[in-house]
Amino acid sequence: MVMSPVVNTYPLSSYTFGTKEPKMEKDTSVADRLARMKVNYMKEGMRTSVEAILLVQEHNHPHILLLQIGNTFCKLPGGRLKPGENEIEGLKRKLTSKLGANSPALVPDWQIGDCVAIWWRPNFETIMYPYCPPHITKPKECKKLFLVHLSEKEYFAVPKNLKLLAVPLFELYDNVQRYGPVISTIPQQLSRFQFNMITT
Amino acid sequence: MVMSPVVNTYPLSSYTFGTKEPKMEKDTSVADRLARMKVNYMKEGMRTSVEAILLVQEHNHPHILLLQIGNTFCKLPGGRLKPGENEIEGLKRKLTSKLGANSPALVPDWQIGDCVAIWWRPNFETIMYPYCPPHITKPKECKKLFLVHLSEKEYFAVPKNLKLLAVPLFELYDNVQRYGPVISTIPQQLSRFQFNMITT
Repeated sequence: MVMSPVVNTYPLSSYTFGTKEPKMEKDTSVADRLARMKVNYMKEGMRTSVEAILLVQEHNHPHILLLQIGNTFCKLPGGRLKPGENEIEGLKRKLTSKLGANSPALVPDWQIGDCVAIWWRPNFETIMYPYCPPHITKPKECKKLFLVHLSEKEYFAVPKNLKLLAVPLFELYDNVQRYGPVISTIPQQLSRFQFNMITT
Repeated sequence: MVMSPVVNTYPLSSYTFGTKEPKMEKDTSVADRLARMKVNYMKEGMRTSVEAILLVQEHNHPHILLLQIGNTFCKLPGGRLKPGENEIEGLKRKLTSKLGANSPALVPDWQIGDCVAIWWRPNFETIMYPYCPPHITKPKECKKLFLVHLSEKEYFAVPKNLKLLAVPLFELYDNVQRYGPVISTIPQQLSRFQFNMITT
């Protein structure tokens, strides 16, 4: 039989969560966000963003860590690369900025794994596709999702204006209304992995 | 930068399509199919099925080969493994049965690549999930989708009662009504690959 790649997942209870200073969103509306994207595109060309899928387990089922802003909007930890920045190093920088403690000794040694999905933004609009649509020669953003392997114990410092949620795959699946097209299809993208649920 | 795995895709026009004797469906209704599944489960335990994602390109966009039964229902080529059968060998056997010529010399040398998705059927019902739902200890079916790498030239013999369609990713995406949950999320599962569109 073909072996699936194995991902170790540890109980949510084995991680420690603290808080740190707020990380405010740069934009206060979708329109502002798209306008800033356009300005940056003129200066720097296509935006590349990198996001992390951090897995934990509860009740023997995989859960993903999502950052919640306000009461509804959820996002994966990550962000935009600097022009020319290496994807792996950039994702580590963004993860430390979003979830690392201020004390460097407490920051997780982020283990960046497989790229599991790539999404394309053809225009300065919210809609993205899991392929670059035909006839689009200058996409405006490429977003890459990476599996990040957590160790058995980690300390996460969550910005005070955000909540860190562990959301089960069964809650994400087929729930595009709540989580959007990118996050709601993570269960399909992870289906080829075998989760080694470690109970400690 | 992280390199995406590369998949060569050749133009649809570089392949040749013939016909062969009909391959009738074993069941004439969904109810019959689920009843037969139950009988087989009692004899053989969990069903494992394997299906192939065969890629071609047209207009510089990837297309997937689907078998159409009647006017609406589409499925990936593949089928159920025999008890204990190797997944790769079983998928080759099914591909030859569905799409290979009767003359062995004309049958493609199927190159089975990555498993890109795994779906689970918890009960003798049509609904499947991209994870084994919590509390389900005895799933009834595990369906694995594999990328199959086609050579530049191949001959496909299509059973006379079926049509072989090349469907673009943009048609599958977000089209669960037409293609169902498994096929409509193939674009997301393939997004991590880089398609090397070869024009010959």
